Amino acid sequence: MFYEHTIELFKKRGVQLEEIAEIVYNLQQPYHPGLTLDECLESVQTVLKKREVQHAVITGVSLDQLAEQKILPEPFQTIMELDEPLYGVDEVLALSIINVYGTIGLTSFGYLDKNKQGVLTRLNNHDEEIHVFLDDIIAGIAAAAAARIAHKYPNIERYFTDRKRDRHGSN
Amino acid sequence: MFYEHTIELFKKRGVQLEEIAEIVYNLQQPYHPGLTLDECLESVQTVLKKREVQHAVITGVSLDQLAEQKILPEPFQTIMELDEPLYGVDEVLALSIINVYGTIGLTSFGYLDKNKQGVLTRLNNHDEEIHVFLDDIIAGIAAAAAARIAHKYPNIERYFTDRKRDRHGSN
Amino acid sequence: MFYEHTIELFKKRGVQLEEIAEIVYNLQQPYHPGLTLDECLESVQTVLKKREVQHAVITGVSLDQLAEQKILPEPFQTIMELDEPLYGVDEVLALSIINVYGTIGLTSFGYLDKNKQGVLTRLNNHDEEIHVFLDDIIAGIAAAAAARIAHKYPNIERYFTDRKRDRHGSN
Amino acid sequence: MFYEHTIELFKKRGVQLEEIAEIVYNLQQPYHPGLTLDECLESVQTVLKKREVQHAVITGVSLDQLAEQKILPEPFQTIMELDEPLYGVDEVLALSIINVYGTIGLTSFGYLDKNKQGVLTRLNNHDEEIHVFLDDIIAGIAAAAAARIAHKYPNIERYFTDRKRDRHGSN
Repeated sequence: MFYEHTIELFKKRGVQLEEIAEIVYNLQQPYHPGLTLDECLESVQTVLKKREVQHAVITGVSLDQLAEQKILPEPFQTIMELDEPLYGVDEVLALSIINVYGTIGLTSFGYLDKNKQGVLTRLNNHDEEIHVFLDDIIAGIAAAAAARIAHKYPNIERYFTDRKRDRHGSN
Repeated sequence: MFYEHTIELFKKRGVQLEEIAEIVYNLQQPYHPGLTLDECLESVQTVLKKREVQHAVITGVSLDQLAEQKILPEPFQTIMELDEPLYGVDEVLALSIINVYGTIGLTSFGYLDKNKQGVLTRLNNHDEEIHVFLDDIIAGIAAAAAARIAHKYPNIERYFTDRKRDRHGSN
Repeated sequence: MFYEHTIELFKKRGVQLEEIAEIVYNLQQPYHPGLTLDECLESVQTVLKKREVQHAVITGVSLDQLAEQKILPEPFQTIMELDEPLYGVDEVLALSIINVYGTIGLTSFGYLDKNKQGVLTRLNNHDEEIHVFLDDIIAGIAAAAAARIAHKYPNIERYFTDRKRDRHGSN
Repeated sequence: MFYEHTIELFKKRGVQLEEIAEIVYNLQQPYHPGLTLDECLESVQTVLKKREVQHAVITGVSLDQLAEQKILPEPFQTIMELDEPLYGVDEVLALSIINVYGTIGLTSFGYLDKNKQGVLTRLNNHDEEIHVFLDDIIAGIAAAAAARIAHKYPNIERYFTDRKRDRHGSN
């Protein structure tokens, strides 16, 4: 319903779906050598068609925008400007995105949060813009899209890996 | 209530609380230079005093043990022996541990799952033993204990870091 | 993959999918007057096709069975026999089922847990059998199947209700 | 840190902590005959001292206020005005509150959401005000405070009840 709107929101905030697809590719390619960027993009698009995900994007990006406009009530405005490290609502929202494809996406999410890649690094290097929610949302969408691919190739994945820990990386 | 029993269970499975404390130390020391191993151990012990955590440990370790004894009903026995990569109940249990100290522990959990440290590596290199649940449980406890420390030093943390992403790493 | 096996497990434990469909019908019919039992059954079947759900069913029902056979290690065996009220792993598993269709199923789950209907009452009146996990799993599946129907009829639902609280009931 | 501010926010939105304590009392009194309203109030206050809970309150109430001021970007403004039934971010936030005291609070939350009591009914009968988040937040806090009491009296609870289902109701 809000699929087109969600993609518009990402564009407005400087994020192309192709960039999210690249993160998915980097996460999954080691486990599925034949994986293409197009498949990753399609997986990202499918995740974005879920209403739960659209609502999370609309809520989180709105909060980022309102913080940039400096119209959030205090102390919320300051929490957002400081990107207060103990504020966890951004992770809570991201978790609701990941859960749509099961908990196996949790690992990728934590990994992305520590080892920022591509668009995630860029979002964190802006001084004027506020992306408290957007970066976690993108990491959550990438983790969910990667989990979706892992679910699609259960046997291939098992074939190429010997131990769960490795395979787990594929989630 | 089951605090002593939980520690016994860990010992039986070859895990010392000090080893979990070391993971916590490695996660948090960069953000709290004065942090000691003792404080980390105390944080691990506090996490283990939560009933929710004890129940998760008892359930998960029991399943690992029953799988080693080969008495789980099929196909559950095979799922456990293969450490089936798409099986996510171990992460679900770990998540219930992390949540006790808020979602900021999610990041550390995912990170530990990808970059095994100390005891986590050892648990994954045994061929005879089954630790499908134990490794996620330990990562969950370490993540929760680290989150607890981050919550205890909100100002120090904010002082030493400039950007949330860095600080976030401390969770 | 384990779809047929999951249905077999339910039968073995005395549960017909039609009984779960009835719960779904009772939850959703007030909001969708034209809803049929067949649609509810189809929704239950779709939920059961999710790998995440199959894994939760296999894990939980195995634990119930092992407790009936009295072969769980202590104190887990006693926790299961007492149906220890503060043991929350059964809810944790159920939550992982509900999350597959988003958080709007949370409400129905809590409601079903308090106001047992049909098969849920029967499961709670057996003295010999242990259904610590099964009843929460069934409530979780019914809540997810109901949420799925609510998601399918977004406009109808909005049309027939005036306030979210009422509508919310439909989740 | 934001404890006083959180209580101020509730007052501003017309909610007294005593009203939340009453819900807790109604949930738990059947299982703990000696329970007092004061103990329930103290439990509510303890829940409100958790940073995770304060952040959820600040975020949710801010969104309610911004919606009343009609300054949320579209389509978010309309979603909030309609109290769109399929919007689940309010439940996601409430869940992060409940989780602080473990999953046993899930049941009470769902129950409260269906059988509104006291302040929850009042919040739902206003036409001018928007309480999309506030009612779920209050139900979440009451469920967490009730779970906290259940955790404090594990034996009493077990003593007064025969079957988990009943006892479960106490969570």
